[in-house]
Amino acid sequence: MDTPGLATPEEVEHAFYVAFQAADLAAMMQVWADDDAVACIHPLGPRLQGRAAVEQGWREMFQAGTPLRFEVVQSQRTHGQLLAVHCVRELIYFGPQLRRRTEILATNVYRKTPDGWRMLLHHGSPVEASEVSGADQGTLH
Amino acid sequence: MDTPGLATPEEVEHAFYVAFQAADLAAMMQVWADDDAVACIHPLGPRLQGRAAVEQGWREMFQAGTPLRFEVVQSQRTHGQLLAVHCVRELIYFGPQLRRRTEILATNVYRKTPDGWRMLLHHGSPVEASEVSGADQGTLH
Repeated sequence: MDTPGLATPEEVEHAFYVAFQAADLAAMMQVWADDDAVACIHPLGPRLQGRAAVEQGWREMFQAGTPLRFEVVQSQRTHGQLLAVHCVRELIYFGPQLRRRTEILATNVYRKTPDGWRMLLHHGSPVEASEVSGADQGTLH
Repeated sequence: MDTPGLATPEEVEHAFYVAFQAADLAAMMQVWADDDAVACIHPLGPRLQGRAAVEQGWREMFQAGTPLRFEVVQSQRTHGQLLAVHCVRELIYFGPQLRRRTEILATNVYRKTPDGWRMLLHHGSPVEASEVSGADQGTLH
């Protein structure tokens, strides 16, 4: 039976960013597949492979205690029967009054499991300031 | 009928890195799905969405004419019926005598089409020097 709140890739993605913003490690790990194929690449970081490494990565990030606010912009979704791939832009606000902003491009992959969908891969990477694009960004260069 | 050399995600990935190393734009674009859902994120670059933008990105990169040699290390493959996700480490040699090396982590997504598999997404991102792990790494710079 599908876990409530984790029945579709969209629900899993929502839960992922809620847990990320709340720095809630238990909620974060519920989002991930119970599978050592899971992997997480934080911006400029190494590839964290397997649940233990993924969990340790989030633990360290959450312990840093930096308040963040997320705005997630969907760029592209492609769904198969067993896998779904979402590409998103994460606009992350931080610093005093959460007024500074950075942009991360993320590829999120979800896998269908007997209990609903779960995250299999999160790959986030920074965009160089001069390369940031988008209608809300001003000019490309 | 499957296009020879592009019948499986593995064949498409091989063709992708052969075209990349050869800076062969025509061969590169044969690898990609004929679909505006295709997207490419070069390291620290913006998201290039759609065939025209993806092609222009490769054209600019190949025109730069920097000789590169690739060593591609598979980290993880997950195949569904319609989508396949490969995570790889790209060890890229460049500079005089191709002796300098950098490492890129890439997520490559393939989609099944009537003509075989094709690339749907390439997301590459750098790893900070201090974060590189693995016994075969030596030094990044």
